Amino acid sequence: MINTYGMNGNHSKPLIDVCFTPALFHLYDPKDSIVVVIDVLRATSSICVAFHYGVKSIIPVAEVDEAIRYKQKGYLVAVERQGSKVEGFDFGNSPYDFMNPELNGKDIVLTTTNGTHAIQTVKNSYKVVVGSFLNLDILCRWLSKKNKNVIALCAGWKNSFNLEDTLLAGALVYRLRENFAFCYGRDACIAAEYLYLLAKKDMFQFLKESSHRLRLEKLGIEKDIELCLTPDTAPVIPVLEGTSLVNDHIGISALTES
Amino acid sequence: MINTYGMNGNHSKPLIDVCFTPALFHLYDPKDSIVVVIDVLRATSSICVAFHYGVKSIIPVAEVDEAIRYKQKGYLVAVERQGSKVEGFDFGNSPYDFMNPELNGKDIVLTTTNGTHAIQTVKNSYKVVVGSFLNLDILCRWLSKKNKNVIALCAGWKNSFNLEDTLLAGALVYRLRENFAFCYGRDACIAAEYLYLLAKKDMFQFLKESSHRLRLEKLGIEKDIELCLTPDTAPVIPVLEGTSLVNDHIGISALTES
Repeated sequence: MINTYGMNGNHSKPLIDVCFTPALFHLYDPKDSIVVVIDVLRATSSICVAFHYGVKSIIPVAEVDEAIRYKQKGYLVAVERQGSKVEGFDFGNSPYDFMNPELNGKDIVLTTTNGTHAIQTVKNSYKVVVGSFLNLDILCRWLSKKNKNVIALCAGWKNSFNLEDTLLAGALVYRLRENFAFCYGRDACIAAEYLYLLAKKDMFQFLKESSHRLRLEKLGIEKDIELCLTPDTAPVIPVLEGTSLVNDHIGISALTES
Repeated sequence: MINTYGMNGNHSKPLIDVCFTPALFHLYDPKDSIVVVIDVLRATSSICVAFHYGVKSIIPVAEVDEAIRYKQKGYLVAVERQGSKVEGFDFGNSPYDFMNPELNGKDIVLTTTNGTHAIQTVKNSYKVVVGSFLNLDILCRWLSKKNKNVIALCAGWKNSFNLEDTLLAGALVYRLRENFAFCYGRDACIAAEYLYLLAKKDMFQFLKESSHRLRLEKLGIEKDIELCLTPDTAPVIPVLEGTSLVNDHIGISALTES
């Protein structure tokens, strides 16, 4: 449960918290929280790119079997496992796969090793939104306006802690501090923010040693990594509505007006 | 499972890995690893102090009920819950409780909120040893000599990540780097080491914001915290033999001789 003990003063502010992996999410209470799902390399970055290119909806599914059923019904389907596109589907998990104006107005089904699993884990939260460096600024403004508790959930790698998702969680804590009560009750917030502040000057270099980046380097997708670490190139707000992610156009308009 | 992918070069070196909470320990393979159980504030620090004062053995138990049964059999029993000593037992979880020459040669039963739970979680590992800042240097020398894989398990706070245990895990990674393959396959190693390097100049100040320290401050045990963050004041090696922790006198002698 979110522990408000020791939070910094203003009890009327909503709380922000960080969860390092879906395997620890049972320790949190998401009923009254907006959960930001984070899978920087690459699911949530790719989702942001797809919406930036005008995709109408993305249906996240956990299993390849489910993806096959959608494919048989004629959907466009993206399937990634172990970092690679799975043969027989339309796309993998590279953000470059979704940089295609022909996707405008389309529905896409997506399953990835970690990101879509994380979305399934949190689907009973008050609200689920997708976060990446690509939508960092607009996401922070959108969250600030909601006046609800926030939990940043790192998708990790097969339920293990990973560094790149933690950096984005730390960036959210750092950026939202002012409008949120920084949840002292959970050390994960503090650690994520410290790591982000250490890394932010050159995240690419900072992540050089991280396991997932090495895994992706081996697959020859360095340019995906650079793209996924570049802030604010896809100002979208993908929110879960029922079983689909859609871009919150109304929320975005409200931000522009204010 | 320990992932050796990307480790730094020398495959003949044993691996070091970090697990942030007992709730993630199922992701690790401890069959062939020495597990260092870490509960800096305060269980594993107190265990080190007790052995430094000559205690013969410490029997860690998970439940208060079990502690009561030992008490009824005439054992000295230490019980801590929610940071405080539980009424009716001999000691709580303060290292100062065990700074008593009369404990020399005695057996003690111990149950705490997090530390003894962590010990129970890992009891089927190749070997279990207790770590704290109080035995950091000797522990690193002892681990270096063993030539086995090492997993540093942070007890955390009720299965959540905590900062002070992570700092000690990071200190182990930092100190053991030379003799171990730094396990790039797990980002937890990298994060723990970064946080330790950030903190090491003044850990007391660094932990000022952490939840558990605030919890203990509220209980008025600031001096416990200072003691628990002071390195190398209790050069002991508490290892689990069957159901009891004992000091590895033979291992310590071997270090002194070499």
